[in-house]
Amino acid sequence: MKKFINQTDSLFDESLQGFAKAHADIITLNSEPCFISRKSSKANNKVCLISGGGSGHEPLHAGFIGKGMLDAACPGQIFTSPTPDQMLAATEAITGDAGVLFIVKNYAGDVMNFEIAAEMIDSENVSVLVNDDVSLPKNHSTGRRGVAGTLMVEKMAGAAAEQGASLEECKGIAERTNTNTASMGVALSSCTVPALGKPTFNITDSEMEMGVGIHGERGHETLPLGSASEIVDIIASAIHEDLQPKAGQSALLHINGLGGTPLMEQYLIYDLAEIYWQKRGVKIIRSLVGSYTTSLDMAGISITLTLLDDELTALWDAPVHTASLRWGC
Amino acid sequence: MKKFINQTDSLFDESLQGFAKAHADIITLNSEPCFISRKSSKANNKVCLISGGGSGHEPLHAGFIGKGMLDAACPGQIFTSPTPDQMLAATEAITGDAGVLFIVKNYAGDVMNFEIAAEMIDSENVSVLVNDDVSLPKNHSTGRRGVAGTLMVEKMAGAAAEQGASLEECKGIAERTNTNTASMGVALSSCTVPALGKPTFNITDSEMEMGVGIHGERGHETLPLGSASEIVDIIASAIHEDLQPKAGQSALLHINGLGGTPLMEQYLIYDLAEIYWQKRGVKIIRSLVGSYTTSLDMAGISITLTLLDDELTALWDAPVHTASLRWGC
Repeated sequence: MKKFINQTDSLFDESLQGFAKAHADIITLNSEPCFISRKSSKANNKVCLISGGGSGHEPLHAGFIGKGMLDAACPGQIFTSPTPDQMLAATEAITGDAGVLFIVKNYAGDVMNFEIAAEMIDSENVSVLVNDDVSLPKNHSTGRRGVAGTLMVEKMAGAAAEQGASLEECKGIAERTNTNTASMGVALSSCTVPALGKPTFNITDSEMEMGVGIHGERGHETLPLGSASEIVDIIASAIHEDLQPKAGQSALLHINGLGGTPLMEQYLIYDLAEIYWQKRGVKIIRSLVGSYTTSLDMAGISITLTLLDDELTALWDAPVHTASLRWGC
Repeated sequence: MKKFINQTDSLFDESLQGFAKAHADIITLNSEPCFISRKSSKANNKVCLISGGGSGHEPLHAGFIGKGMLDAACPGQIFTSPTPDQMLAATEAITGDAGVLFIVKNYAGDVMNFEIAAEMIDSENVSVLVNDDVSLPKNHSTGRRGVAGTLMVEKMAGAAAEQGASLEECKGIAERTNTNTASMGVALSSCTVPALGKPTFNITDSEMEMGVGIHGERGHETLPLGSASEIVDIIASAIHEDLQPKAGQSALLHINGLGGTPLMEQYLIYDLAEIYWQKRGVKIIRSLVGSYTTSLDMAGISITLTLLDDELTALWDAPVHTASLRWGC
């Protein structure tokens, strides 16, 4: 295993310390229990958005804390759910009268621990489950996973909260964004979890894992390595089939690198995906290309499409000032 | 070789097409000869900044075109210098009365081709050579290479140009930034150039290449794989020795991923580097963490320190709106 680390068990803390120092102008790190929150006074007049999940997906979620997006994030150890005491402490530290919205990726541990936290909290709070991964069937036993589309949910709901929307309104925006969003990923290599010290799965030089999540698990199926065009065709078709956009529909296209994929290849995938939807009459009016929801050092990409209406477009365009997403301020 | 490509020889074009589509709001792609320019009318009252170099370093340089930074970039094929006709066409397309400043990384091909272009251009123009890589001695036969510090030169000079500085003033800012900047990189893996189809060098699981450039060349020396603290100590010491900052000096600390390195590890390196300089009385007042100057899929990082004064700090903080660096607008 070759990584920039000192000890396997200190990676989490040291990386968080670096994050906190590099972005001390916008966030504050609380150590025990661990949560990262927006550097501002308690927001009495604003709905607070809290997300969280295992580490190893950086910049998700802490990189999206700040004006117009999240108010706090609770990081677990690598690929491990945070514990309810973290969500409870974050909620108590930042939430005012307007209530709190939990944004939760659909993984068993995250769902359970956010639910426990919700029960422990007195004040009004609601949760939204993100499940944008269309590599699993809609009727999958544990439901579809939440992957790169989580960013869109956090951005849209965060903008609404910043503009003074109520808790119910923020929840509605988050759910509509989730419904309008579909993602699917592919890996050319496994990631290596530090505590394990070796790749989580084996794959030959002539294979790819289609339909991977973001926790180093195997994909939905192992396929012969395809060209970029073949890969985009498989993924975009699955997304298109799921969302069934009408001709003339506007959309946001997000190409996400899974941690070990250079930007040059991500832009190539963007080109092919844009052509795919352009041929089907879908108008790509917004774009995001980069490694935003990662799986440690995995060489892979995911494609996310979010169908836009005027309201969602305006929420996407609204000012945001976080460590990893910033415009308009 | 596992990459998201169709044909090796179409990667360059397809990736550029994707870039142009994703950022059509701020840049325009010209195909023959190939250059990317800021989407705005000819700037008669502003010094124009043009940079360029081989591809494979994305987002450098095209990702830094826009308000407050570059006016145009000329990309060569992967790790290959652009040709003088590209710089000439870019210059003719965008430069007005205030003249043009070429920002050139110190590599033989880039230097030669920018020099030829400069000779072919009638209007006033000057060049600045970036040579921030301290892994090579100051008296190295071909001089030190230009690496991740190029971003700082482009940002500072770009902000000055945006504010109406003259050509000589912009050149002065660029040269001062270059003098105040030192970088050094390390690789845990080789990158794989698509046309070659295999890693450009071999390295065992227990080795690291210290002092790498950004073209897949071997480092200054092959060392036993060290801990993150040991790596930071080697690199930061070389930078500190070169810049010799006094106690109380303010600085910008940039941790750069070389393409295959997750953000989580980059933040850990940031933490350690910040501690290194904090112990020596250097005040890190600005930060940048991310993969901005890459070497295809190389797993590696570089550390860049730029000594700041009030003027350079203000130029760093000035509004910038490019594909990969954006704040204040």
